[in-house]
Amino acid sequence: MKLVIGDKNYSSWSMRPWVLMTHFGLPFEEVLIELDQPGTKDAILAFSSSGKVPCLVTDEAVAVWDSLAIAETLAERFPQHAMWPRDANVRAQARSVSAEMHSGFGELRTHMPMAIRTIKPGAGATPGALADVARIDALWCACLDASGGPFLFGEFSIADAMFAPVVMRFNSYQPPLSAQAAAYAQRVTALPAVAAWIDAARRETHRIGHDELDDSAA
Amino acid sequence: MKLVIGDKNYSSWSMRPWVLMTHFGLPFEEVLIELDQPGTKDAILAFSSSGKVPCLVTDEAVAVWDSLAIAETLAERFPQHAMWPRDANVRAQARSVSAEMHSGFGELRTHMPMAIRTIKPGAGATPGALADVARIDALWCACLDASGGPFLFGEFSIADAMFAPVVMRFNSYQPPLSAQAAAYAQRVTALPAVAAWIDAARRETHRIGHDELDDSAA
Ligand SMILES: N[C@@H](CCC(=O)N[C@@H](CS)C(=O)NCC(=O)O)C(=O)O
Ligand SMILES: N[C@@H](CCC(=O)N[C@@H](CS)C(=O)NCC(=O)O)C(=O)O
Repeated sequence: MKLVIGDKNYSSWSMRPWVLMTHFGLPFEEVLIELDQPGTKDAILAFSSSGKVPCLVTDEAVAVWDSLAIAETLAERFPQHAMWPRDANVRAQARSVSAEMHSGFGELRTHMPMAIRTIKPGAGATPGALADVARIDALWCACLDASGGPFLFGEFSIADAMFAPVVMRFNSYQPPLSAQAAAYAQRVTALPAVAAWIDAARRETHRIGHDELDDSAA
Repeated sequence: MKLVIGDKNYSSWSMRPWVLMTHFGLPFEEVLIELDQPGTKDAILAFSSSGKVPCLVTDEAVAVWDSLAIAETLAERFPQHAMWPRDANVRAQARSVSAEMHSGFGELRTHMPMAIRTIKPGAGATPGALADVARIDALWCACLDASGGPFLFGEFSIADAMFAPVVMRFNSYQPPLSAQAAAYAQRVTALPAVAAWIDAARRETHRIGHDELDDSAA
C-alpha cells in the first residue's frame, strides 16, 4: 500500500491514517507531497481526483481518498486489528465521535490551524473556537469516563487517530482544558506513532508563509 | 429504532438517514424537532449530547449521532441490505465520496443552504460555491461512468443518501450542471423515499426567518 500525505507539520488530515497505520504496524510506502507549492495540485491529482491528501493507494491500485474512508477501509481489510472497538454498541459511539469530528469544528480548524512546530499559547482563541474546544473536552471526558481509558474507547482506535491532529492544535495554542482532557492529550502526544510523526514534522524544512511568524519552537 | 430529525425543509443532515432508512424499508419511529426555536437545543440534548440532529436511538437505547455514523451503523446491523456496494473496491470508492461530502463543500453549504420550498435560480452562486458544484458534478459523472448508473454505484446506496440534500440545494438554486449530473439529480428527486421527504417538507408550516423571503415556491 502507498499512503500519499502532505507536510507532516501542516497536514492535519494526513496525520490520521499515517498514525493509524503506523500504530497498527501496517506496512506502507509513504509519498509526501509538500503543500502550497506551484506543483502541489498536479502532484496530488496524479493520485486522487479530489486534489487533496491523504490518499491511500491499495495493492489493487484503488485510490481511497479522505481520511475517514481510509480508516473504514483499513478496518474492514485488517479485521485482525481492533481499529474500531469490538463491541457493536461501543463501535457505534466511536463512529459517532469520529464522524462528528470529521464534519465539524470549523471554527477550531480555521483559527487554530495545525502547525506542529508552532507554539503560540492563547492564539486563535475566538469564541467559536473555544466553543469547539469545550465540546471536544466534554466529548473526550464522556468517552474516557465510560471506557476507563487510557484512550477514548479503551485501547487506541480510529477515534483517537481522528483526534490526533486536534491534540497537535491544543499543544500549539494551549486553550484551557480540563485536567482529564489535558492528560488524554498528553497520552496521545506520547504514543510512539504520534511521537514519530511529530519528530518528522520538526525535521521538515519546508515552511508555509505566515504560519510560523511567531514560532518560538522552531 | 427512533430517528430524531429537524424540519424536513431545512435539516439537510437529517435527510440522509431518513431517506436511507425509508428506502431500505427499515422500521423506525420519527421524532421531529423544529430547529431554531427557543426550546430546540434542550429538546435535542435530551437525545444527543452533540446538540445536533439527526440522532438514531437504537433498540438497545444507544444514541448514534451524526448522519455518516448512523449510515455505517445501519449498514453493519442490516447486512441483508446492500446499503454499501457489495464489492470491496467499489465500497472503498463509495466511502471516499461519502466522506468527502461529509467533511467538505463548506462554501456550498453556506451559500446554498437547504430550504426545499425555496426556488431561487442563480442565488448563492459565489465562486467558492460554484467550485464546489463543479467538483460534485465531476464526481457524480465519474461514478456514473464507472457504474453505469442509475445511481452513483449502480443501485441506490449510502453514497446517494449522502448527496440527496445536495440535490435539494441544486433544485432550489439551479446552478449550472452537466446533462449527466442533472439527469442524476432528477432520478434522486424522483426516488420514492426522497419524494416522500420533499412532500412532507412542502406541508410543513414552521418557517425559519430569512430563508424564504424570495420564496416563489411556497
Ligand atoms: N476530507 C478530506 C480532507 C483533506 C484535505 O482537505 N486535505 C488538505 C491538506 S490537509 C489538502 O490536500 N489540500 C489541498 C492543497 O493544499 O492543495 C480528508 O479527510 O482526507
Ligand atoms: N455532522 C452532523 C451535523 C449535524 C448538524 O449540524 N445538524 C444541524 C441541523 S441540520 C443541527 O442540529 N443544528 C443544531 C441546531 O440548529 O440547534 C451530522 O452529520 O449529523
